[in-house]
Amino acid sequence: MAVLVRGGTVVNADCSQRADVLIDGGTIRAVGPNLEAPAGAEVIDAGGAYVMPGGIDPHTHMELPFMGTTASEDFFSGTTAAMVGGTTMIIDFVIPDPQENLLSAFRKWRGWSEKAASDYSFHVAVTWWDESVHRDMGTLVAEHGVNSFKHFMAYKNAIMCEDEVLVNSFLRARELGALCTVHAENGELVFHLQQELLKQGITGPEGHPLSRPPAVEGEAANRAIRIAQVLNVPLYIVHNSCIESVEAIIRARNEGQRVFGEALAGHLLVDDSVYRNPDFETAAAYVMSPPFRAKEHQAVLWRALQAGHLQTTATDHCCFCADQKAAGRNDFTKIPNGTGGVEDRMHVLWHHGVNKGRLTPNEFVAVTSANAAKIFNLYPRKGVIQPGADADLVVWDPKKTRKISAKTHHQKIDFNIFEGMEVEGINTVTLSQGKVVYKDGDVRTVKGAGRYINRPAFAPYYEALTRKAELERPKPVLRSAAE
Amino acid sequence: MAVLVRGGTVVNADCSQRADVLIDGGTIRAVGPNLEAPAGAEVIDAGGAYVMPGGIDPHTHMELPFMGTTASEDFFSGTTAAMVGGTTMIIDFVIPDPQENLLSAFRKWRGWSEKAASDYSFHVAVTWWDESVHRDMGTLVAEHGVNSFKHFMAYKNAIMCEDEVLVNSFLRARELGALCTVHAENGELVFHLQQELLKQGITGPEGHPLSRPPAVEGEAANRAIRIAQVLNVPLYIVHNSCIESVEAIIRARNEGQRVFGEALAGHLLVDDSVYRNPDFETAAAYVMSPPFRAKEHQAVLWRALQAGHLQTTATDHCCFCADQKAAGRNDFTKIPNGTGGVEDRMHVLWHHGVNKGRLTPNEFVAVTSANAAKIFNLYPRKGVIQPGADADLVVWDPKKTRKISAKTHHQKIDFNIFEGMEVEGINTVTLSQGKVVYKDGDVRTVKGAGRYINRPAFAPYYEALTRKAELERPKPVLRSAAE
Amino acid sequence: MAVLVRGGTVVNADCSQRADVLIDGGTIRAVGPNLEAPAGAEVIDAGGAYVMPGGIDPHTHMELPFMGTTASEDFFSGTTAAMVGGTTMIIDFVIPDPQENLLSAFRKWRGWSEKAASDYSFHVAVTWWDESVHRDMGTLVAEHGVNSFKHFMAYKNAIMCEDEVLVNSFLRARELGALCTVHAENGELVFHLQQELLKQGITGPEGHPLSRPPAVEGEAANRAIRIAQVLNVPLYIVHNSCIESVEAIIRARNEGQRVFGEALAGHLLVDDSVYRNPDFETAAAYVMSPPFRAKEHQAVLWRALQAGHLQTTATDHCCFCADQKAAGRNDFTKIPNGTGGVEDRMHVLWHHGVNKGRLTPNEFVAVTSANAAKIFNLYPRKGVIQPGADADLVVWDPKKTRKISAKTHHQKIDFNIFEGMEVEGINTVTLSQGKVVYKDGDVRTVKGAGRYINRPAFAPYYEALTRKAELERPKPVLRSAAE
Amino acid sequence: MAVLVRGGTVVNADCSQRADVLIDGGTIRAVGPNLEAPAGAEVIDAGGAYVMPGGIDPHTHMELPFMGTTASEDFFSGTTAAMVGGTTMIIDFVIPDPQENLLSAFRKWRGWSEKAASDYSFHVAVTWWDESVHRDMGTLVAEHGVNSFKHFMAYKNAIMCEDEVLVNSFLRARELGALCTVHAENGELVFHLQQELLKQGITGPEGHPLSRPPAVEGEAANRAIRIAQVLNVPLYIVHNSCIESVEAIIRARNEGQRVFGEALAGHLLVDDSVYRNPDFETAAAYVMSPPFRAKEHQAVLWRALQAGHLQTTATDHCCFCADQKAAGRNDFTKIPNGTGGVEDRMHVLWHHGVNKGRLTPNEFVAVTSANAAKIFNLYPRKGVIQPGADADLVVWDPKKTRKISAKTHHQKIDFNIFEGMEVEGINTVTLSQGKVVYKDGDVRTVKGAGRYINRPAFAPYYEALTRKAELERPKPVLRSAAE
Repeated sequence: MAVLVRGGTVVNADCSQRADVLIDGGTIRAVGPNLEAPAGAEVIDAGGAYVMPGGIDPHTHMELPFMGTTASEDFFSGTTAAMVGGTTMIIDFVIPDPQENLLSAFRKWRGWSEKAASDYSFHVAVTWWDESVHRDMGTLVAEHGVNSFKHFMAYKNAIMCEDEVLVNSFLRARELGALCTVHAENGELVFHLQQELLKQGITGPEGHPLSRPPAVEGEAANRAIRIAQVLNVPLYIVHNSCIESVEAIIRARNEGQRVFGEALAGHLLVDDSVYRNPDFETAAAYVMSPPFRAKEHQAVLWRALQAGHLQTTATDHCCFCADQKAAGRNDFTKIPNGTGGVEDRMHVLWHHGVNKGRLTPNEFVAVTSANAAKIFNLYPRKGVIQPGADADLVVWDPKKTRKISAKTHHQKIDFNIFEGMEVEGINTVTLSQGKVVYKDGDVRTVKGAGRYINRPAFAPYYEALTRKAELERPKPVLRSAAE
Repeated sequence: MAVLVRGGTVVNADCSQRADVLIDGGTIRAVGPNLEAPAGAEVIDAGGAYVMPGGIDPHTHMELPFMGTTASEDFFSGTTAAMVGGTTMIIDFVIPDPQENLLSAFRKWRGWSEKAASDYSFHVAVTWWDESVHRDMGTLVAEHGVNSFKHFMAYKNAIMCEDEVLVNSFLRARELGALCTVHAENGELVFHLQQELLKQGITGPEGHPLSRPPAVEGEAANRAIRIAQVLNVPLYIVHNSCIESVEAIIRARNEGQRVFGEALAGHLLVDDSVYRNPDFETAAAYVMSPPFRAKEHQAVLWRALQAGHLQTTATDHCCFCADQKAAGRNDFTKIPNGTGGVEDRMHVLWHHGVNKGRLTPNEFVAVTSANAAKIFNLYPRKGVIQPGADADLVVWDPKKTRKISAKTHHQKIDFNIFEGMEVEGINTVTLSQGKVVYKDGDVRTVKGAGRYINRPAFAPYYEALTRKAELERPKPVLRSAAE
Repeated sequence: MAVLVRGGTVVNADCSQRADVLIDGGTIRAVGPNLEAPAGAEVIDAGGAYVMPGGIDPHTHMELPFMGTTASEDFFSGTTAAMVGGTTMIIDFVIPDPQENLLSAFRKWRGWSEKAASDYSFHVAVTWWDESVHRDMGTLVAEHGVNSFKHFMAYKNAIMCEDEVLVNSFLRARELGALCTVHAENGELVFHLQQELLKQGITGPEGHPLSRPPAVEGEAANRAIRIAQVLNVPLYIVHNSCIESVEAIIRARNEGQRVFGEALAGHLLVDDSVYRNPDFETAAAYVMSPPFRAKEHQAVLWRALQAGHLQTTATDHCCFCADQKAAGRNDFTKIPNGTGGVEDRMHVLWHHGVNKGRLTPNEFVAVTSANAAKIFNLYPRKGVIQPGADADLVVWDPKKTRKISAKTHHQKIDFNIFEGMEVEGINTVTLSQGKVVYKDGDVRTVKGAGRYINRPAFAPYYEALTRKAELERPKPVLRSAAE
Repeated sequence: MAVLVRGGTVVNADCSQRADVLIDGGTIRAVGPNLEAPAGAEVIDAGGAYVMPGGIDPHTHMELPFMGTTASEDFFSGTTAAMVGGTTMIIDFVIPDPQENLLSAFRKWRGWSEKAASDYSFHVAVTWWDESVHRDMGTLVAEHGVNSFKHFMAYKNAIMCEDEVLVNSFLRARELGALCTVHAENGELVFHLQQELLKQGITGPEGHPLSRPPAVEGEAANRAIRIAQVLNVPLYIVHNSCIESVEAIIRARNEGQRVFGEALAGHLLVDDSVYRNPDFETAAAYVMSPPFRAKEHQAVLWRALQAGHLQTTATDHCCFCADQKAAGRNDFTKIPNGTGGVEDRMHVLWHHGVNKGRLTPNEFVAVTSANAAKIFNLYPRKGVIQPGADADLVVWDPKKTRKISAKTHHQKIDFNIFEGMEVEGINTVTLSQGKVVYKDGDVRTVKGAGRYINRPAFAPYYEALTRKAELERPKPVLRSAAE
């Protein structure tokens, strides 16, 4: 059935204009003034509202098995909450255990994700190395639409990559035209600090940020950037939380390197005082890695978004409830790391970004949707409202407000890190694949309606890297033979 | 008459796609695969080629009266050369003398520009201050489609602005929603160095760069940025030539300030060794301000373009021939400042940008066209290939080469700063207002065919500034009255 | 009479050692272990204490006529308070009015300073320019032991220097081998903001910091630095209060420029919340320029001291009492700018510097005494404990505490910006010219005992600048004559 | 026998003064004007000359077993060459193989060093980790006067430390009050690049710098700095050769961290074009790690010395002759890494530092002698001319010249990286332990006359770190017990 979104202001990353949007068969068919509604079309009144590309959250972990438990949010509940909040696509992660076959892990996750209500895709983590990993990376790119691989520089004795694995995997990704991403924390230092703090009797959640200070993130970010520079591969750093990693990215970008960075909604707005809350459950609910930081870091993250040094926003949505968090009651290193946010990201970004004069509406679209689409090579299928694009979009009422609360949110978690925050400017309608999946409180998502989206390799930025590599190929010096 | 550009890859700033482009009535009507040519339409074969928005050169000076002479290039010859080189719009400058009425100067320039073959617009310079200037700025914005004002921080005893004028003009521009631009060189220091060098017997063109070292540009750039920061206005710095000014811009942008920067094609590619050429005519031909710089500065300019710190490229096209340059044979301070380039900018940017792996084709479009359109609020009328946009575009053959030379160029100047440079990747066809104005060496420009383009005030970036100003409005402290 | 300071640890900027100090005739005669006391010598027990060079405060304004009133502290009371607090020399300022003859102003100040109890010297301000100023600068250097000139970049319509005066004066100082110093705030912006704030109804002391934001200081600091760079003169920036000016200094020093920077004790420890105190008298008491800043700036000032980017600490001691401050009750721009601190600087620097792990005791000596002596070319007569140096020194008990208060301080001002601060580590004895002038609360200063100290031109850092200038002297290009 | 150095200008790091220097028993007894020569004293005329502390080279490798051969310079020949060039003390390295006992390695090196003609000391490398290493570090500090430990971040599969070893060793050093030093290059990347280059057919010395680009040094420098920051230990980075590592140091120092950096004379003056010399022997002679760099890096190293970001200069003197270098004729990775310079460092530093206006004579003393003495806790026994100091000093004639050449140098190596360089300003006399060991070409060094110098732990900078650690000790949050 056709849908006509009428009377709104279409906001893309490049510009805004008063225009109607005509949708049919899951695809945007026309964008322009005074479009006529085909017979039988559903007409959505967007008068006084913005019409924007649905959000893309490039960093979620639905039903992730982690630290001895499993994230409480599943692919259906999670994508439903996402769409209620205006996010119409997620990119989740396949995380094989060390020694686990990549393809079988990929299939396992694909099984779980069949439930998804929105479109989705997968990054695949490289957590170890042998010839099979090398081969399977190729298969994933060639046959399964994977164009990004994740690497954990933290979690020693578990999924942490040493430099040798990073080098091998980055080189392989270069051959394949895939994008390497890293979780940047120096796992050796985290491990040492955890042990030291426990020895000093710091066992509560306040130990969590002390064991992962900004310096360990800055170190790893810079290391990954340097490795990428030497190997001439593009790099994407997930969840930058602090000045130290942002400065590493800025330096690299200033030197012409293709480095991308992501900020989480939580890191932009929550500070580290939460870990000293005397209530264990509250403090533990905020435990995620990297941890929330002192306020000065938030200002720098916002500025980096404005300046374009960070291009995307995400949530690292990975829900654990109080009973799961309780596993670390006597040892903060055992608190499952993670919290929610996929439903709230767009709202808090608009309120604290656009309403506060930090971002224009166009920049909002860029950092919540278009840039992720470009970086992960989904653009212009996703991330823009124009003919031919998937009809994933939101109608956004800049005057409407919402008070965020775990009591009313749709996320399957008993806590909300933005609890009590009043935001102005929210989506009143969400469309996914051209269908209304959310309207004014009415949730109409369908389990399994989401599609796995293939992402082709060799995103546009690869072209420049390849040319550069050719130009810089070293040449031997001709020397007479040894006498 | 309709035109169909068939079989090319349409390259916009946001992405590239194989698509035909249908044009009618000077406007792009459709962009998509397999478009049908209307009856009687001219069909242009773009197979194997890129189809890109025509270039916008936001910094030219056609027939400028300056330093006792008049620039040799007029609006017809200049826009013709521009279109031969793929640039389909220029933004030139109205420069009133101190005490000259702004509106009458504007009318004088509009008279000269009637000859233009391509679309064009005007920045207006503020070179002095009184109530009439304040009033006329308002009239220019409200009635004449001017949304940008220029300020010279150099040229002491001529058109240089002291801080007081800058403050007054920036404040007025803020009220009007116009963009302030500055030529950033500390005129007091330049004046001192000129006198000192002449006293030391340095009278030839080698004195020119010595009298305008990077530090004087860096100083002025930073000063203008700080003034803009304090007054909360957006700022555009023209012709950044050196590390010092780029670093000032980077700092400001990193702190969230709305500062834009321009690089000239010449500064990206020519170094300051030219001023020590023993032939006076050659050395003098390169005299422009800011001067060409040591090679290390070029690398930084390129990186700043890549990183997005500089958004636009221009030429400062301002032609003086050997007989005009001769005025300064015995005193470098009397050599008319300026040189050409409007015909070559797109070619050298592609060759040294895209072919060398510095820029993707999309980034090329951004820095030669789309970004200027956005900053000067012409977008999406200009700067993009999409339905509704003006049909200013080029067909670009990435394999075709050209050897740049004053002997063959169309610019009215007897010298070319890129003389002898072989470039690969040039436009084979240029369309302006939907008409073919250049095709494979055949120049079909029409005197007077160009239109003056109005530019509305309050470009999108103003919205964020206004919100910020409201949030930061100071509040008085309540105090009990003095006893 | 000879004095033997026995049993302490002598702390100089370069190292510490257990040693006795023998003094005679106002001069240090010997430093070493187990010195014998000459017959009749006074023996001071320094067991468990540090023996350090007396402080040098290079920035005070005793009995300054300013803003329609005169600073309440005179040269006797001020140098007495200084010596009670361990500071044994001040460098004050001669500030001629525009058009006032420099030499007559110098003589006027020398008359006032005859009362001084400690040694002292004078910087002379250049507030205007003509041939007489050029000549008098020469006389002051040649005949009056002046080797530093001060320039105000703020205070428009009063003592502010435009760039033209800066250029002229810097060039003259270069010829003379003198050091230029600047008060770095953009006076044009301050003036505009003052008018704007008053128009908005912000008339109280909270308007003071709003009218002088960090950006205006950063601008001026960078401008002065760039002018000094272009003219190849050393530069000293007084009272750096913010990140913006510190970053300008760091940049310049990283590029090899000879730029020195000073921090005030107050800016290191007091933040700008004081201006929003609802009590006018309290808020007004803190009014000085640059104003106190947000806390984040203090951290950067401390780090810059540690890293050596800022070399000296001072107070800008310039006292105005409540009845004087009242002149600005209805208009913050009329509140006399200034506050005290000469008695407290050494104590707060030790407590917050050494006790907090920011500075070693050696670094404390460097930033409170030795560096000022070196920069202003008083070293090794002042600033070090070694044979031949003036016997200005303190015995410092690291365990002894003091609670700072206006009720107990010796400064002639009814307010103390460090009120209530408890410091650990203070001088128990102060010696000036080899005489005990303070001991355990007993003040023994003598009016007029202080000497005017001549400071020779061409401090050691000038040598490198001169060599550099010679190497970089430009050479003309040989060209055949015009045909 | 007493020695009187008469009529010179004594130059220390803090200041210069005309003074005679009286020496007896290996120690400086007096410094002052017009000292009387004791009966029988040798009088050295220093008229018109500078008298300066002898140089300290904190980075040499005499007779080092490395890469299958042994460095050609032994402790006697090496210290002789050093003293001919004005350097009167070296700090060499004990480098145990992995699994080799630290104490037995230390004893082995002490045996070799018995030959030394000048005073010397040893850093000890930590190349592996177990309980014995932990224990032996303690013994070396407590009983053998070692206060610095070295770590190699390069040389994979040989002496490279992984992060885990760095963390363990840094922590142990912190307990002991010793200084950690690192050779900063990412060994994993170097290893990869070596393999890749060989595969590409790059087998000659030109492959050496390509396998160790600046990025691998910048990465490792930053990593070591971050680890030191997190563990709160001081850090010394040896042989910084590039912008990347200098910037890492500057950042850290700006943030208040205690990081020290060393520059080699060679890196200051030789650029990487040498590796493309078509003559293998020549190119191979320059092979050392890090390699020589592009010219732009040299400017930054000099500036960092001026600004105080780098504090010391050294040589990494490690001599291999042509027959040794030949081992890598067909594989650059087998060329023994190292070259000479201990004889030339002082000369080239003066000529290119002082004569070029980069350094004052005082700064020359600081970077060639005093700073090393302070950092390695030898000061004021070494590094200064004052009563009580060891009588290691040079008489320096600023007008005398020398042409550097392998044909005339005293180093046991058949190549000189400064070949042909004419320097102005050299030592005419060197005194070691109060004895003339070199005078106007006459070499009088004595095998075995040098003493092993104990260096105490807990250098002064440790005090501030310890205070900081105490203040920042984390405290647990009190929480009610779990219900």
